[in-house]
Amino acid sequence: MSNIVNTRDKTAIVGIGTTEISRDCGRTELKMAVEAILDAVEDAGISVDDIDGMVNYTMDKSEQLEVVNALGIPNLSFFSKTPYGGGGSCATVAHAVAAVEAGLANYVVCYRSIRDASLPVRIGDFDASQQSYNDDDVYYGMYMPYGLITPVSWVAMFAQRYIHEFDIGDDAFWPVAQINRENANRNPSAWFHDQKLTYEEYMNSPMNVTPLRRHDCCLNIDGAMAVIVTSAENAKHLKQTPAYISGVAQGMHTHGEQMTSYYRKDITTLHEVVEYGDLMFKMAGITPKDIDVAQFYDAFSPLVPMQLEALGFVEKGEGVDFIQDVDRLRVDGELPINTSGGLMSEGYVHGMNLIVEAVRQIRGTSTTQVNDVEFSLVTGGLGVPSSGIILRRG
Amino acid sequence: MSNIVNTRDKTAIVGIGTTEISRDCGRTELKMAVEAILDAVEDAGISVDDIDGMVNYTMDKSEQLEVVNALGIPNLSFFSKTPYGGGGSCATVAHAVAAVEAGLANYVVCYRSIRDASLPVRIGDFDASQQSYNDDDVYYGMYMPYGLITPVSWVAMFAQRYIHEFDIGDDAFWPVAQINRENANRNPSAWFHDQKLTYEEYMNSPMNVTPLRRHDCCLNIDGAMAVIVTSAENAKHLKQTPAYISGVAQGMHTHGEQMTSYYRKDITTLHEVVEYGDLMFKMAGITPKDIDVAQFYDAFSPLVPMQLEALGFVEKGEGVDFIQDVDRLRVDGELPINTSGGLMSEGYVHGMNLIVEAVRQIRGTSTTQVNDVEFSLVTGGLGVPSSGIILRRG
Repeated sequence: MSNIVNTRDKTAIVGIGTTEISRDCGRTELKMAVEAILDAVEDAGISVDDIDGMVNYTMDKSEQLEVVNALGIPNLSFFSKTPYGGGGSCATVAHAVAAVEAGLANYVVCYRSIRDASLPVRIGDFDASQQSYNDDDVYYGMYMPYGLITPVSWVAMFAQRYIHEFDIGDDAFWPVAQINRENANRNPSAWFHDQKLTYEEYMNSPMNVTPLRRHDCCLNIDGAMAVIVTSAENAKHLKQTPAYISGVAQGMHTHGEQMTSYYRKDITTLHEVVEYGDLMFKMAGITPKDIDVAQFYDAFSPLVPMQLEALGFVEKGEGVDFIQDVDRLRVDGELPINTSGGLMSEGYVHGMNLIVEAVRQIRGTSTTQVNDVEFSLVTGGLGVPSSGIILRRG
Repeated sequence: MSNIVNTRDKTAIVGIGTTEISRDCGRTELKMAVEAILDAVEDAGISVDDIDGMVNYTMDKSEQLEVVNALGIPNLSFFSKTPYGGGGSCATVAHAVAAVEAGLANYVVCYRSIRDASLPVRIGDFDASQQSYNDDDVYYGMYMPYGLITPVSWVAMFAQRYIHEFDIGDDAFWPVAQINRENANRNPSAWFHDQKLTYEEYMNSPMNVTPLRRHDCCLNIDGAMAVIVTSAENAKHLKQTPAYISGVAQGMHTHGEQMTSYYRKDITTLHEVVEYGDLMFKMAGITPKDIDVAQFYDAFSPLVPMQLEALGFVEKGEGVDFIQDVDRLRVDGELPINTSGGLMSEGYVHGMNLIVEAVRQIRGTSTTQVNDVEFSLVTGGLGVPSSGIILRRG
């Protein structure tokens, strides 16, 4: 415990980089990764030669080695991969913090490059010829024959249970879709920048898998984003306002599966979020009340109120009540959320865009900027082993 | 640099675990992983509940989540994957050191479980229906049409160049095969425990890919091994003599490819080893002269003299000369190596067995035990991004 507190604010995100968000990028993941990293390097005011650490997702199709070669990075002394898709988004920063704290690297770039719109097989699709599960993944054999073959179908099961358990209405998750779209409408980079969303459109959108309508689901896009982590000491001498990393943790809870944790005693609690949240807030030395703005991983809308509960913003069962007053979630509200439009309306950069936006909130450069942000929260993918970060303005 | 030195000896390997080494394990990678981890937990004198961190290879077929569930580990607060196969063996410990130093985990288990003998497709095989390269891995397209389709073929190219460049004899690498087999003959767990190897057998063994004979290559087997890393502080109160981690680093050098780095200016130098070696020795505050025993990654025998050069044990071009006097490599010699029999004669547990053996040397429990070991070196896979560790007896 002493160690984790010692690590508070000792590192910072000093650079952010992005490509455009599109549905037809016309280039490889490698090229997009390189562009996003170069953008982050320039943003930080460092040189490519300074980079000596790299973290990306196991699911990323751009090879670290090829990124190093394409950029001409001289050498990496630390590199790692985060498993479990978007659950590992904030974990990229956790690994970077660990590497920098231990002195194993000085400038660690974390990135995700994804072509989820313009390739024939997307995350969420099922194509038996493309799926390659490990031979220990036998548990999927219990679900696929019954049609539970995609993330939306897996998450729908525990979303339905949540509705049942807390007697929630048919339109309970509309405020998540609503606030995300409002914020996207102010963000020129968001895919849904120009498209408004009304309650009627939301309610009339097709049911992907009950209870999840089309507009309860994230948005497949092409794009890449990167952030650069270094020591607080280095951060002081760089171009941007540092986003100090006050708290960061991962969580992998027993009896979890990949979006199919149906045999837990309580399947409407995000147990791994409870676990990492506890550590993350202890490391930061704050409570949820101190959070000024939050980017909640919104692959599917019910995951937002569930996270509010798991992280201790509200009591169990009160998440949906909390979000019904959408003013609370707006820029001048009690807890402004997903200010770039999130995964549902900015685009599904697999959570890296939420980290980038959390940094913008610290810098004061968001298109939906909250006033006087001190603590900026961002969370990783849900229903899988997960991760989260609390950033602080120095 | 100050940080890296501060991390010297702050963590330790406190538990080691293994399954048997076989060629027909009759069970899944998951089951073997669980057995090896339980063995390491018992060896360390801790409880499964104490484990809160996990690192394994991206190539490992046992899911971390399933290992957690099978063991009943309550929660992991840190987990990562090391890419590039055996190049990431020592990197598992690097990640663990980083996590423990930053306070993100207390007891990190690093493991590898492999069925490389009893499954239809092995690491060195090529089967077009099983290979799944990323779409950025276009460089393999330059080699595969010419028959360069397996690790042995890729490594043979720069081994041949090494022979040409330094005018090395036809039997130059025999001492590596010889010392490995001698050591395996003393190790009851080694696959080649009961089989001696003569010079004539070595020379008459089939040429897999010139210049690599069968007995220049590692040995496909089934097996799993695990080590547990914690803080030096925790280590003091545990059952075993701690193997303090004095130095640990990873290396990914520019213009490297996966065993096909043929377009570097100098293809007989293991550039990533030069890089990580420099950092690792600086962290430990010692030089190669201080190493008492070494476990060199011996996927293919020429990689041993190449490592001697890259790590600074000898000058460039002197590696083969050095090993010709095999007494130097024996238990009472100048630099005893691969005391368990290595990947060539104990078995190819993808490098984890070399880490386990390096710990035994610190504890004084090897079947080829070197006297008065203070510093015990172990290296990761070559021709790919790599990693290494220096262990110290306290």
